Amino acid sequence: MASNEFAFIDRLRLLATDEAARGLDDDVAVIGELVLTHDMVAEGVHFLASDPPASVGWKLVAVNLSDLAAKGAEPLAALMGVTLRQDDEWAEKFLEGVAAACEAYGLALVGGDTIALPPDAPRVLGLTAIGRGGDVPSRSGGKAGDVLWLVGTLGDAAAGLELLLDDREAEGPLVEAYRRPVPQLAVGSMLAPYATAMMDVSDGLLLDALRLCTASKCGATIDLDAVPLSRAYVAERGSDRRNRLRAATGGDDYALLAALPSGLDPLGLSLPSGTILACIGTLTDGEGLKLFDAKGEVPLPEQLGYEHRAQNG
Amino acid sequence: MASNEFAFIDRLRLLATDEAARGLDDDVAVIGELVLTHDMVAEGVHFLASDPPASVGWKLVAVNLSDLAAKGAEPLAALMGVTLRQDDEWAEKFLEGVAAACEAYGLALVGGDTIALPPDAPRVLGLTAIGRGGDVPSRSGGKAGDVLWLVGTLGDAAAGLELLLDDREAEGPLVEAYRRPVPQLAVGSMLAPYATAMMDVSDGLLLDALRLCTASKCGATIDLDAVPLSRAYVAERGSDRRNRLRAATGGDDYALLAALPSGLDPLGLSLPSGTILACIGTLTDGEGLKLFDAKGEVPLPEQLGYEHRAQNG
Repeated sequence: MASNEFAFIDRLRLLATDEAARGLDDDVAVIGELVLTHDMVAEGVHFLASDPPASVGWKLVAVNLSDLAAKGAEPLAALMGVTLRQDDEWAEKFLEGVAAACEAYGLALVGGDTIALPPDAPRVLGLTAIGRGGDVPSRSGGKAGDVLWLVGTLGDAAAGLELLLDDREAEGPLVEAYRRPVPQLAVGSMLAPYATAMMDVSDGLLLDALRLCTASKCGATIDLDAVPLSRAYVAERGSDRRNRLRAATGGDDYALLAALPSGLDPLGLSLPSGTILACIGTLTDGEGLKLFDAKGEVPLPEQLGYEHRAQNG
Repeated sequence: MASNEFAFIDRLRLLATDEAARGLDDDVAVIGELVLTHDMVAEGVHFLASDPPASVGWKLVAVNLSDLAAKGAEPLAALMGVTLRQDDEWAEKFLEGVAAACEAYGLALVGGDTIALPPDAPRVLGLTAIGRGGDVPSRSGGKAGDVLWLVGTLGDAAAGLELLLDDREAEGPLVEAYRRPVPQLAVGSMLAPYATAMMDVSDGLLLDALRLCTASKCGATIDLDAVPLSRAYVAERGSDRRNRLRAATGGDDYALLAALPSGLDPLGLSLPSGTILACIGTLTDGEGLKLFDAKGEVPLPEQLGYEHRAQNG
């Protein structure tokens, strides 16, 4: 996120005084039992012009569903805004990806808008996803002593993007993780009733954890060794301190970060088989993050997360 | 709307099978008592790069509220998607326009997303507006014998755009109509309980009336002389047949088109003072539009409405 985005969002906050807005701190708005989120993906920022269009459609839906997952909400309906160019084939395949993700997660496409843009304009796709929520955890309810749990693995998508930037023809699980993130809906809905705070990790664990801490007015200690890495990630990059740090700051993970009361062990819940769930740290008094691994304290990297900057297509 | 947009929307329709989608024929989706719409505005398509940014913010909100107005819904909340470039000043002023429109119509901004795009990318702004509706008229309930009423004047915005394309410094009421449309919320909510069909006129009266007819499986006869023109429009262009046709096909009006049972006179309702309301025709058996004026039948123009094509900034 560029600095003018921060400034803009600060101004937005002054506008978004309604209770439903949750101070814009929460990725979602809550109106009655409905949970609403709006995320965009843009060519050269969230996807590459060379990415298969069906994967872009999938990703647009999945990144929004990830926000619903982080609030334990069940997908209900979506409105989509699409910029079109002259090539029907791209849009057709894009829509196949949207359809596949909607089908996979029970999301009904109920409306939206299309705009025809000139051929040289980057594609911008937006989606408003609406879910039905029960207990909707915020980012701000975490308390010192709560345990931080992470659902999913980190770093895969950022590693996949790096492979693609090096070679647009790259393939494999890391590239797939970048192109087709999986929203953690089932686990999110099971953790939501217990979580004191929950959010999805989309901009890098360290950056997002710091956001959770700031909203919850506390600090956190995070065990870098506990951060779950996929086999593909370890095979590609290894699991030394440097590459664990890269995984914890990479972005585009769409994992879940949940603060749970210390007595509660989510491994005792009937989570879906194959769920990757790791205890990665605790919330503490004070503020800011402390990072350690088996060798001792780890200095915080200068960049805690992923900034969505334009990439060359 | 370009032909590939039509093809894309046809494909979307195959996806949007949920009842809430209303077959994508209705500009809005309906979930319980909530009415939802998502419209985008794009630089070079719906606004000019030279337009004051505050007017762009106003327009983004107003075009969405116009969809709520056409369904008699009361504005509730909105989520906004904004592409940013490096110039904070534009975004700041844009937000002032958003804030002014939200304030004017009681819309709470509750969430959204921002993306930083390269400086040469056209700005694309999206908004999902959520309203609370009671009787929510569709486009498809019109019946032969119903009377067509129009709320507002036509042609002003298209004339304003023409003035601006000729001279970016142009000013006056027609330019204002293009830049700062006024959603007909109060009248919309009063007509909604009686309307058999209602929609906003955003792409040109003739095109939108044909859409209403097609959805309602009927035809319409429209009296071109009855189409309300503003004083500014008449002063700029005159009110001869040619310029009435231009007004009826111009687009960006954000007037309301309502089909009411023939016995009902909306002038008997306590409409807000200053409301411009005109009886412009009737729904008929058969299909398609018939146009007439004092001189007799008027041949339908080749282009019934405004296609959102890119303009040079």
